[in-house]
Amino acid sequence: MKIDGFTTSAVAAGIKYKDRLDLGLIYSSEPAVTAGVFTQNLVVAAPLVIDKERLKQGRAQAVLVNSGCANACTGERGMQVCLEVGKMVADGLGIPEEMVQLSSTGVIGEQLDVAVFKKAVPQLIENLGTDSFDDVATAIMTTDTVKKTVERTVEIGGKEVKFMAMAKGSGMIMPNMATMLAFVLTDAQIGFVELQKALREAVEKTFNRISVDGDTSTNDMVLIMANGQAENPWIDDTDKEGYQLFSDCLYSILHELALKIVADGEGATKCITIRVCGAKEKEDALLIGKTLVNSALVKTAFFGEDANWGRILAAMGRSGVRFDPDKVDVAFDDVLLVENGLGLGPDAEEKAGEVLKKKAFCVTVDMKEGGVCEEFYTCDFSVDYVKINADYRT
Amino acid sequence: MKIDGFTTSAVAAGIKYKDRLDLGLIYSSEPAVTAGVFTQNLVVAAPLVIDKERLKQGRAQAVLVNSGCANACTGERGMQVCLEVGKMVADGLGIPEEMVQLSSTGVIGEQLDVAVFKKAVPQLIENLGTDSFDDVATAIMTTDTVKKTVERTVEIGGKEVKFMAMAKGSGMIMPNMATMLAFVLTDAQIGFVELQKALREAVEKTFNRISVDGDTSTNDMVLIMANGQAENPWIDDTDKEGYQLFSDCLYSILHELALKIVADGEGATKCITIRVCGAKEKEDALLIGKTLVNSALVKTAFFGEDANWGRILAAMGRSGVRFDPDKVDVAFDDVLLVENGLGLGPDAEEKAGEVLKKKAFCVTVDMKEGGVCEEFYTCDFSVDYVKINADYRT
Repeated sequence: MKIDGFTTSAVAAGIKYKDRLDLGLIYSSEPAVTAGVFTQNLVVAAPLVIDKERLKQGRAQAVLVNSGCANACTGERGMQVCLEVGKMVADGLGIPEEMVQLSSTGVIGEQLDVAVFKKAVPQLIENLGTDSFDDVATAIMTTDTVKKTVERTVEIGGKEVKFMAMAKGSGMIMPNMATMLAFVLTDAQIGFVELQKALREAVEKTFNRISVDGDTSTNDMVLIMANGQAENPWIDDTDKEGYQLFSDCLYSILHELALKIVADGEGATKCITIRVCGAKEKEDALLIGKTLVNSALVKTAFFGEDANWGRILAAMGRSGVRFDPDKVDVAFDDVLLVENGLGLGPDAEEKAGEVLKKKAFCVTVDMKEGGVCEEFYTCDFSVDYVKINADYRT
Repeated sequence: MKIDGFTTSAVAAGIKYKDRLDLGLIYSSEPAVTAGVFTQNLVVAAPLVIDKERLKQGRAQAVLVNSGCANACTGERGMQVCLEVGKMVADGLGIPEEMVQLSSTGVIGEQLDVAVFKKAVPQLIENLGTDSFDDVATAIMTTDTVKKTVERTVEIGGKEVKFMAMAKGSGMIMPNMATMLAFVLTDAQIGFVELQKALREAVEKTFNRISVDGDTSTNDMVLIMANGQAENPWIDDTDKEGYQLFSDCLYSILHELALKIVADGEGATKCITIRVCGAKEKEDALLIGKTLVNSALVKTAFFGEDANWGRILAAMGRSGVRFDPDKVDVAFDDVLLVENGLGLGPDAEEKAGEVLKKKAFCVTVDMKEGGVCEEFYTCDFSVDYVKINADYRT
């Protein structure tokens, strides 16, 4: 897919890894309406401090993103590097500095080398084209084993609106925060307020519902740029139908990217949807979901393909939510394993064990306390997760 | 060590494991002043429901404890088994049922077999003696690789007061809750209110400050039984000095047991003290400590002997505590690694890497926001942790 007005490029700049793409540029020939959500970690990487300030104008034209170095915990010098590199991009493209967004991912506490960018940024700008979207998606990978992209089209007001999206993320992933990196390009005509609202709502139900390891990054950001080239009727607060079509499509894109992230979670062998049903309040469902997707014991049992439902009830019990353990049902896909707090015996466990052998499955817990149901996404916790993270910097 | 009035015994009852001790009995010939703290998990094992009710009288004479089966999530039948087994113990010893405390640890969701106890309880009672304290400490082990016992004496009011204590715990261990099993016997003369207070205070700074994996068990309990045989002046609210001597000694016992638990954490290769200093409020120190001892990324870095301090700052940043990241210092033992939020470079990292090779070390984070300092205890997160918990039930 191509979207008129957007071009991209990527290079192997040698920031950390040798001979692999590690620096990408996204460029919009016109100022694009741009909305973003950023990490809620108190420790925020240098580029995000600048991005958040610049995004107050609701417009951007370029995103420069590198892997191999997070530029977090880098103090004054880290900020200075961002400003210098951003200026290189702005000058090369002939746009104001404020229109450049910067994004980094990789090791925390190391400085970026400006010299690398002096050589790489002119190359990036020279190579801008419409065939390198996947290359940028590759350049932002760290421990990711596959690039993560999604394309969609949706008809709004008789016009075809296109979306191209990418994400990266494999470790330092936890729900209930703006997590990882993701960039979405669209040619929709949409107001900034509506774009920001649609993004927040979609992120809350997708990226904020995933966990690989319960740790939240200092560098997470999700940007969406809408350049208006589709010439659909402006989506604003008068166009309820257009907004619904747009936000449904955006949700479906982020949902697919979120699932790609957990499926490629560090060391993951399985992708698990946790459905928390029968909650009295949404807050209760969120607390229980978050506890389950972060429980080392629940997730090692998934890795071991062991239908150890006692760990699920124990994790629910420590979540802080009030419920009656003697009413809880637990099912693995369509196999009911626990009914009213009691295990249904060896037959049910054997069938549940078969479900656990699948690459993707759904665990449903029903508290029967109310009508709220929420979904969460996670992966199993494997020997390889530990190996990857014991050796990450070496 | 022996304490007059207390006897113990253990047998291989065959509850789950074959040919190993799995059932223990502690008996006090006189009603002992007894205080307890129990899991704060909402899902509570059957024996604890009974224990909490019985402990309202502040006295007990017997503790029956088994490994191999948690008797949690076992419904009415699980409760019935507890009552039957408790009655066997009471009848065999000739004491009221209400004087029997019951404790279980092992797999959740499986039922105990009463027939096993019909055979084992008479053997236990027949074998009661003063040489089997260590056998009981062995009988309560699950994935523990070593038994955990501590002995102490302290002089109070001219009398020697003795303590014998045991604990078990290796997985499903998280701070800020009453965790794991521990039993402390003493011949001190002390009032129930004072005993309960001393226990709560000591647990808060020891067992509630450890984490192996962030999961809290359904079966955790700590009991202390004081039979008064030391004939020290009664420790009550008039005896400030006696209370201080007693509670200091109890703290030191539980502290040593807590360290034994993290050192024997599932798959652990290192024992780490996390010192959170310069906090404005105790709550802040607790939140940060809890986040650090539960961070998979921080703990896999310890396993990898990688002085990856960026993960420590990232975890602090997601804890929810407000602090200035640009003021934080981080030290590994006496090696300062981060000063005012910035890494001190390769030399410091190399020295810190040497510290990480040790079996036990201390990580200090100083926020410089206030004068509160609190300690936490954890182990590293290894490949073996995942292997143990993927295979636990098989």
